[in-house]
Amino acid sequence: MVLKSFVEVNPESHFPLENLPYGIFKSGNEADPPRPCIAIGDFVFNLSAVSSAGLFNGPLLQNSDCFHQTSLNKFVGMGRPAWKEARSTIQKLLSFDEPTVRDNATLREESLLPMNKVQMLLPIVIGDYTDFFSSMYHARNCGIMFRGPDNAIQPNWFNLPIAYHGRASSIVVSGTDLIRPRGQAHPVGSSTPYFGPSRKLDFELEMAAVVGPGNELGKPVDVTEAADHIFGLVLMNDWSARDIQAWEYVPLGPFLGKSFGTTISPWIVTLDALGPFSCDAPKQEPQPLPYLVEKNSKNYDISLEVRVKTTAPEHESVLTKSNFKHLYWTITQQLAHHTINGCNLRPGDLLGTGTISGPEPESLGCLLELTWNGKNPLSFNGLPRMFLEDGDEVVLTGFCKGDGYKVGFGTCSGKSQETVDLI
Amino acid sequence: MVLKSFVEVNPESHFPLENLPYGIFKSGNEADPPRPCIAIGDFVFNLSAVSSAGLFNGPLLQNSDCFHQTSLNKFVGMGRPAWKEARSTIQKLLSFDEPTVRDNATLREESLLPMNKVQMLLPIVIGDYTDFFSSMYHARNCGIMFRGPDNAIQPNWFNLPIAYHGRASSIVVSGTDLIRPRGQAHPVGSSTPYFGPSRKLDFELEMAAVVGPGNELGKPVDVTEAADHIFGLVLMNDWSARDIQAWEYVPLGPFLGKSFGTTISPWIVTLDALGPFSCDAPKQEPQPLPYLVEKNSKNYDISLEVRVKTTAPEHESVLTKSNFKHLYWTITQQLAHHTINGCNLRPGDLLGTGTISGPEPESLGCLLELTWNGKNPLSFNGLPRMFLEDGDEVVLTGFCKGDGYKVGFGTCSGKSQETVDLI
Ligand SMILES: [Ca+2]
Ligand SMILES: [Ca+2]
Ligand SMILES: [Mg+2]
Ligand SMILES: [Mg+2]
Ligand code: NI
Repeated sequence: MVLKSFVEVNPESHFPLENLPYGIFKSGNEADPPRPCIAIGDFVFNLSAVSSAGLFNGPLLQNSDCFHQTSLNKFVGMGRPAWKEARSTIQKLLSFDEPTVRDNATLREESLLPMNKVQMLLPIVIGDYTDFFSSMYHARNCGIMFRGPDNAIQPNWFNLPIAYHGRASSIVVSGTDLIRPRGQAHPVGSSTPYFGPSRKLDFELEMAAVVGPGNELGKPVDVTEAADHIFGLVLMNDWSARDIQAWEYVPLGPFLGKSFGTTISPWIVTLDALGPFSCDAPKQEPQPLPYLVEKNSKNYDISLEVRVKTTAPEHESVLTKSNFKHLYWTITQQLAHHTINGCNLRPGDLLGTGTISGPEPESLGCLLELTWNGKNPLSFNGLPRMFLEDGDEVVLTGFCKGDGYKVGFGTCSGKSQETVDLI
Repeated sequence: MVLKSFVEVNPESHFPLENLPYGIFKSGNEADPPRPCIAIGDFVFNLSAVSSAGLFNGPLLQNSDCFHQTSLNKFVGMGRPAWKEARSTIQKLLSFDEPTVRDNATLREESLLPMNKVQMLLPIVIGDYTDFFSSMYHARNCGIMFRGPDNAIQPNWFNLPIAYHGRASSIVVSGTDLIRPRGQAHPVGSSTPYFGPSRKLDFELEMAAVVGPGNELGKPVDVTEAADHIFGLVLMNDWSARDIQAWEYVPLGPFLGKSFGTTISPWIVTLDALGPFSCDAPKQEPQPLPYLVEKNSKNYDISLEVRVKTTAPEHESVLTKSNFKHLYWTITQQLAHHTINGCNLRPGDLLGTGTISGPEPESLGCLLELTWNGKNPLSFNGLPRMFLEDGDEVVLTGFCKGDGYKVGFGTCSGKSQETVDLI
């Protein structure tokens, strides 16, 4: 069944009435502050205008200023009852038969803006960003490359969702250019480390969960309640400089090989919109400890794709096709694990899944795996290609396929720029 | 020479006119918002009151609302010229011969509050927290324990200041109790991991730099300008659960073994106050890469001490005496390294030094080292002690010794609380 809106929505659009992903937009008018919106077809629906018009008339939202903020943090912190109330109000207001907005020219013009006339900003202020490592295929491939096939996956990996703290300050929204990082890299044999622009710039195909209501320091979130602490998902490209990472990461983990930039999509697709696309998560063996055991262990069937556009040679190709459902550890297990020591999460925190590689050679989520650390170059118009070059644009996309419609994330893109000399 | 204030300052006080450390206090009056202050003797000097009285009359501060904020972020972001202006104004206002505050009873009562009548809060909103690993003694001891004496220090360690991203949300101010974390820990042989309250709760004696003005994404800070991006230092206890950490940290570094809590002192001592106590940093061999080479490589001579107070048996002892000057990598090298890949720092970011162990057995900065991972217990009233027990209070302190005065950090303390069952 396809829901029908008075706003025209192409069947290929990622943003039908079934989706209603949240973002923060800035209108072309300099004086207008950034404001919350949802996407519908080729339009953004300005929730601040809707709220000012008194149309959020449910008990939780009617007196709230959550849609008059410059980020979604306040709204995501309100929890599922408020999210459900908002979704039902918005779905009704935009439906084909509902005249409130449809027949009010002033309100329509104020609230529905062409997407190509607005700028999308980071949807949330991110207090802390954590990156997990939850694809078994990715963990195994990295393990084989760096430690050989016998110890490919560390013994801890099947017992807990491995993760590290990432850098929050350098998270940027889709469309932001990224300057190639400089750094030290691994010496060969006994030589001293080299220094300069990274020679192994890579992307990582990831998604990330946006935390809704947080938890108090010292009070873990039970895995069976973890879904109520997750507002939704975004696409994420965890740019990585493999040469810098390889040299620095023992023993304290990735640092400058990652912290130069991480790109997320402007749209947060809610778990409510993703509900119809849930599927069973892979069977876990060994059985996890009780604090990680879920009655229904759910993944989502989200088709993911990475394209790259290069300038020399001019070239565009699909690098990989993967799926969110390949993750071994679920996002609810990730969240429960994150808090089991008492660590407090706050609304807007970001939990990255880790690179989402699948089992097939065409479903590997980064160039490190796709080229086997540069040993098996790809071919771009006949030229060998190992890692990203200046000018390359990496575009992630992802969607769920419904019956006659798509629930999608739009794109998450970024272009690699030449390192600029310091002086 | 000792500067004299009309506020009585005991020669043993950490807070004479030479110091003037910054903090955020909350008065006993519920309605008063948190406000910036400095410490002088046993008083806090309310900078919001001083500012309202029009006494910050220098060019940079006279029209600024930086002292009417609930955190110091705005002020620290203004940079050294503003810090110098504030320091000189405050030093003058509090000096023995200056009547402005001294002889104005109303202003005096409004601006000078007994320290024991106010509550000190976190002085800054911390966007990102990074923890370095800059003591060679600590790195060597950990290396010997976990990998044996032959590969004690990794080859990368002498080439770059190793660090990892820490958790910002769980940073708390001195005096906050800390609930013992639960988690998984290392299985012995082929057994499955155990789960429960950590059996190896530890402290780490650290200090941390508070970032002043930040840098733009993609624009590294030159090491020769790094000091202008550092406002000052705090004491820091990086609580650690060694059993959780040991099981989880390969390959992505420390995560839940650290993120349950980190305590900092309420007072930030400025680099300007620490200037007279600078000393040469250790000679670095091999010579670092050019981006890490400093004309004057400076440490500070800050005496550090950790005491523990236990309840069973009732006991208090000094666990360690160390010194900030033992650090191999300087805080300016840490900051330059942190940004060399283009990573952006923001005002209020925290850069921990890593555990500050010195060369002597009495100068080790954590129980892991002091008890050699539990193998050589300490003796508390005749009872063997390996790690922290419930009810233990750990108190860090540190100061610079001037001629007839001290420039100190006060204390950074926290008490370990029993894990509470979930249901
Ligand atoms: Ca990643
Ligand atoms: Ca530490
Ligand atoms: Mg990244
Ligand atoms: Mg900690
Ligand atoms: Ni962080």
